[in-house]
Amino acid sequence: MPQISAKGRMMPESPIRKLVPYADAAKSRGIKVYHLNIGQPDIETPKVALDAIKNFNLKVIAYSHSAGILSYRKKLTEYYKKVDINITPDEIIVGSGASEALLFTLQTCLDPGEEVIIPEPFYANYNGFAINSGVVVKPISSSIETGFALPPISEFEKAITPKTKAILICNPNNPTGYLYNIEELKVLRDIVIKHDLYLIVDEVYREFCYDGEQHTSIMHLDGLDQHVILIDSVSKRYSACGIRVGCMISKNKEVMRTAMKFAQARLSPPTLGQVAAEAAIDTPDEYFKDVLDEYHARRDIVVESINNMPGAFCPKPRGAFYATARLPIDDADRFCQWLLEEFETDKKTVMLAPATGFYSTPGAGLDEVRISYVLKVEDLKAAMHCLAEALKVYPGRK
Amino acid sequence: MPQISAKGRMMPESPIRKLVPYADAAKSRGIKVYHLNIGQPDIETPKVALDAIKNFNLKVIAYSHSAGILSYRKKLTEYYKKVDINITPDEIIVGSGASEALLFTLQTCLDPGEEVIIPEPFYANYNGFAINSGVVVKPISSSIETGFALPPISEFEKAITPKTKAILICNPNNPTGYLYNIEELKVLRDIVIKHDLYLIVDEVYREFCYDGEQHTSIMHLDGLDQHVILIDSVSKRYSACGIRVGCMISKNKEVMRTAMKFAQARLSPPTLGQVAAEAAIDTPDEYFKDVLDEYHARRDIVVESINNMPGAFCPKPRGAFYATARLPIDDADRFCQWLLEEFETDKKTVMLAPATGFYSTPGAGLDEVRISYVLKVEDLKAAMHCLAEALKVYPGRK
Repeated sequence: MPQISAKGRMMPESPIRKLVPYADAAKSRGIKVYHLNIGQPDIETPKVALDAIKNFNLKVIAYSHSAGILSYRKKLTEYYKKVDINITPDEIIVGSGASEALLFTLQTCLDPGEEVIIPEPFYANYNGFAINSGVVVKPISSSIETGFALPPISEFEKAITPKTKAILICNPNNPTGYLYNIEELKVLRDIVIKHDLYLIVDEVYREFCYDGEQHTSIMHLDGLDQHVILIDSVSKRYSACGIRVGCMISKNKEVMRTAMKFAQARLSPPTLGQVAAEAAIDTPDEYFKDVLDEYHARRDIVVESINNMPGAFCPKPRGAFYATARLPIDDADRFCQWLLEEFETDKKTVMLAPATGFYSTPGAGLDEVRISYVLKVEDLKAAMHCLAEALKVYPGRK
Repeated sequence: MPQISAKGRMMPESPIRKLVPYADAAKSRGIKVYHLNIGQPDIETPKVALDAIKNFNLKVIAYSHSAGILSYRKKLTEYYKKVDINITPDEIIVGSGASEALLFTLQTCLDPGEEVIIPEPFYANYNGFAINSGVVVKPISSSIETGFALPPISEFEKAITPKTKAILICNPNNPTGYLYNIEELKVLRDIVIKHDLYLIVDEVYREFCYDGEQHTSIMHLDGLDQHVILIDSVSKRYSACGIRVGCMISKNKEVMRTAMKFAQARLSPPTLGQVAAEAAIDTPDEYFKDVLDEYHARRDIVVESINNMPGAFCPKPRGAFYATARLPIDDADRFCQWLLEEFETDKKTVMLAPATGFYSTPGAGLDEVRISYVLKVEDLKAAMHCLAEALKVYPGRK
């Protein structure tokens, strides 16, 4: 039997999905499991997008342009103009989700063996994409004590080697909910210009900012045209994760020309998803207001509940719909599995994502969990009650 | 300005798309261009699939399972049973087109620097996927003289090195239309078992066989469970290229377990496309009968027309909807560009794909072109007339 690739053996199991069999088993024992483990929002997709699908009336569902349907890319430029990002349709390549856009970006910018610096904790799949591309992740630590703010410039400078080619951040951040401010982005600008690096910024949660905070896009800063690749997705914005439509944006022509070769090899992003995404741009503003109010309320429940649990600590995230919290536990993987395998209160339990999967440094995040607040207020309160009760009786409590 | 990756520089330009600007310029001069350069069929998508899209009535377009919607994979097993392929839903991973399925396969089975043997000419994007995966393509020549039959076993043996990990074929073949018979597949079986290789077989044109020929799937052969990865797509079967739904199939559990890690990293294949693809499995048999009759007629027009052109030769393909023909020309790239830039007859011309892009050996296929017979009979006749006229006046005629 031929041996599978070393790369395949290195690919991490999804830290979220490895608990799924335990959740399934709990359900089969009649236990209600509150899913706070995955970023699949329960919010409805905007009606304009759903209607566009219903009204699709072409006779052939054909390939789209490899960079995405032109009318969609044109419409996207209008969306970006509204958030003060001025780009042209040929500065956009539509991908099958931000996932594919990020793969194109890594493969375009970095060769196997080259390094990308990422503040940790970071979105777990960045690891998978890096391994897939043969790229080496160099984590630098952001700390729960500072609410996961950008690490100081000295930490970046220490991590930079002759093989460093890029810095990657997610803003607002998954899994911490941290919202980078303009001063932090300027620090990054100085670093990437000084060391001639790419700056890859994942802004898929741009719309989700709380407490009246405004999102600062990396595209709002001058002087970075040759350095920045913006990663975006409509999955979270319109609660349409399944349409698989994201994009990469750059003003660097050589990056875009090269990425197009990867895009052409796979022919086209999904046509139907683009039809929905194009229509979604006309989503009325009230939709976002309602969604934001809802997430704001959810966040407050999570943060307050956890900070009321003895020994637990949750910094207040100002963006996205995740929080990373520290719990008085020995091992987050063991705890999250225990929640599903052995715990129940009133026939209910909660599923969380162990934060270990979001760290690249071995042993980091051992007492942290990521909470996706994607359930409605009532369920979220019940889930927080489960967590509080669980912490009282968990055998590995610290 | 940071330098793009060497991998990005190595990625080939699509041999088909590099002529697009010339076609656009011809159109802007008022010339009608018959597109025989790309495998985008003009056939209508089955009504059941289009209706499924119109009737999509979930409120949230959510991620699907990373391996594909379970009900779709179950339904797929029924489709495969009809073509005598017995598989279970967990032997299928749905990808964003065969493109992604093939990428998962290469990355699962081969490490950077390892080799895959592919008879040439071959589907041009195999090159892109190989470079993307860091995998080395070792071409062995199939010849237009034998209608592009499988090269003799001695050619495979000569190409095998300690780094060889897989053989990849496309059956029926793109770009040649060649249909491999069971004896040829048995030769491949012997080779992969003897040398402990993976055998990757792309069967996306399975339904397109002519002259009463039956398609033999690689899954019909015994003894290959640990070796075979089948690549499939619904793009051509249901003329639904834009839904981006394909799959990889294998009975090798380690291959599937590993490929799932790549699949999980990108979260999910497109949900809407899978809804259409699931419904498409109920496409009535008459649809295929009509489609097949149509392609059969088209093929005959292409083959007869070309073989009537002095100095030209087109073997009769028995599958897919491509033919690779030899023309009395100096350089196919130059000729195909000339057709768009300088030639017209009655304000019409034809766009072909130079075969050079389908060969990995430099200089091979210089006098060959690929013709996709994806136009209706009347247009195809007009396109063949253009080609005949063009060959009479082409300055680089041999």
